[in-house]
Amino acid sequence: MNVSRTAAIYKEIQQSICRTLEEADGTGRFTRDAWEKEIGSGLTCVMQNGSVIEKAGVNFSCVRGSFNDNMAKLLGENASSFAATGISSILHSGNPFVPTIHMNVRYFSLDNGSSWFGGGIDLTPTYINPAEARWFHQTLKEICDKYDISFYPEWKTWADDYFFLPHRHETRGIGGIFFDRIHTSGEADFDKMLNLTSDLANAYPLIYSRLMKDNGHKPFTEAQKRWQKIRRGRYVEFNLIHDRGTKFGLESYGNIESILVSLPAEVEWVYQYQPEPNSQEAMTQDLLKKGIEWVW
Amino acid sequence: MNVSRTAAIYKEIQQSICRTLEEADGTGRFTRDAWEKEIGSGLTCVMQNGSVIEKAGVNFSCVRGSFNDNMAKLLGENASSFAATGISSILHSGNPFVPTIHMNVRYFSLDNGSSWFGGGIDLTPTYINPAEARWFHQTLKEICDKYDISFYPEWKTWADDYFFLPHRHETRGIGGIFFDRIHTSGEADFDKMLNLTSDLANAYPLIYSRLMKDNGHKPFTEAQKRWQKIRRGRYVEFNLIHDRGTKFGLESYGNIESILVSLPAEVEWVYQYQPEPNSQEAMTQDLLKKGIEWVW
Repeated sequence: MNVSRTAAIYKEIQQSICRTLEEADGTGRFTRDAWEKEIGSGLTCVMQNGSVIEKAGVNFSCVRGSFNDNMAKLLGENASSFAATGISSILHSGNPFVPTIHMNVRYFSLDNGSSWFGGGIDLTPTYINPAEARWFHQTLKEICDKYDISFYPEWKTWADDYFFLPHRHETRGIGGIFFDRIHTSGEADFDKMLNLTSDLANAYPLIYSRLMKDNGHKPFTEAQKRWQKIRRGRYVEFNLIHDRGTKFGLESYGNIESILVSLPAEVEWVYQYQPEPNSQEAMTQDLLKKGIEWVW
Repeated sequence: MNVSRTAAIYKEIQQSICRTLEEADGTGRFTRDAWEKEIGSGLTCVMQNGSVIEKAGVNFSCVRGSFNDNMAKLLGENASSFAATGISSILHSGNPFVPTIHMNVRYFSLDNGSSWFGGGIDLTPTYINPAEARWFHQTLKEICDKYDISFYPEWKTWADDYFFLPHRHETRGIGGIFFDRIHTSGEADFDKMLNLTSDLANAYPLIYSRLMKDNGHKPFTEAQKRWQKIRRGRYVEFNLIHDRGTKFGLESYGNIESILVSLPAEVEWVYQYQPEPNSQEAMTQDLLKKGIEWVW
């Protein structure tokens, strides 16, 4: 019941995200690929080669199935079936001054009565602009604070820990918020988290529209483009090595094109690349660490 | 004892590989980064932006340490310490008509008396040339046949199974040979496998020199270059998601630049890319499957 209600709302929000992004981009249009499998159905919306957006995926899905041993182990729960719905999105711009952004909201329900929400939004700039980073975190904080003032500080730390590449000793970007398994008991609790995740998903294209508007037409050099491609390499490493959503997708029903639409278009790996000391690139590299308080 | 003997031979072969490749490339030169950590030492040789070779890594390492629970589980062996040495190499060319090649030889020894060799060579063309594929497999078969005529057919199948992307339902390339945990008991047995792996490692730069000579100066279009970048995306997916060597490297001492020097320079991901029917690209796509007998 709660799953279908959540799915209906998320599905509408997905369409609204696509509309807002199309408007902000100007020329780019989303293709819409509906899929249906035994496990459930979904809609994969993809934009490629817009004016500002180079590659965007906005995925909705609603799945259900039997609860297997793997899930039991992973979740520490006993149940015989599960249902889940969510929106998952990543936006990449061709302009190195427009960050990459990622958003996910999801609701998971077991037939043993246990259910929870998860999600978050995080930002990965090619060049970190501290004022913009502060505004981004402030925006997320304001949404969270409407529901519970403990959420932002907890979930900001969670994002720092989650969006981290241990093999590089660096964060993926400037983080944002990340939360998982926020259990809901009772209708009021459920409504609160449904509203919060809806607010986040609705804020997402507006945040990106502002980032596109402010930066999308800034000129850039070949060296800056190259730095973007190198930074994107880290994004690919994170998604293919660490990201739980990607792993789960690859190991389960595997709608491979939907899962890997998250990968940026053009990427570059250079052996032992080191930014010039005191360059803009070096400043960004220095800020790829946990625990920076962007809002104070 | 056997480890240091093997390490000395492998280290010499590494240098010989670099010399042969420098000669074949003409202008490209290897940088040599020696590293030493608690676990052991190594030498990472890298060439970037040669005439034909765009990015090449030729790594040697010799490590030893205490045998941990993870290894015990993975290997089904009990021991208190291990030692290992090997050469691992990947060569990428900027020209889409020169394939990507990978070679690894390794020797692993436990203090419980158990020891084994592993390794292989496999080829990943952007455009599969059946005559070339046949020659490549024939060359490997001839080396293997000198030692045991059962090796090539067994190891060819092993490569098909190992260099496979389950999430794409496609092989990484045209395979080659792959073998692991070939146990040696007694000096004659050890010598045989040391000679075989040395023969393979020595043949490796000669095989690539021929591929470079035959294809390195062929003109190519932008569309062909793009297909190369898309195919390289699969290579990255394999290495970051599946490859055991990369995983082991990332999870252990993590000389990250040495491990990820295997990744190609420029890569591209396109949503739902489909080659034109009956094109050269479609023919290659069709041949990315297990069980093709290139030598008959």
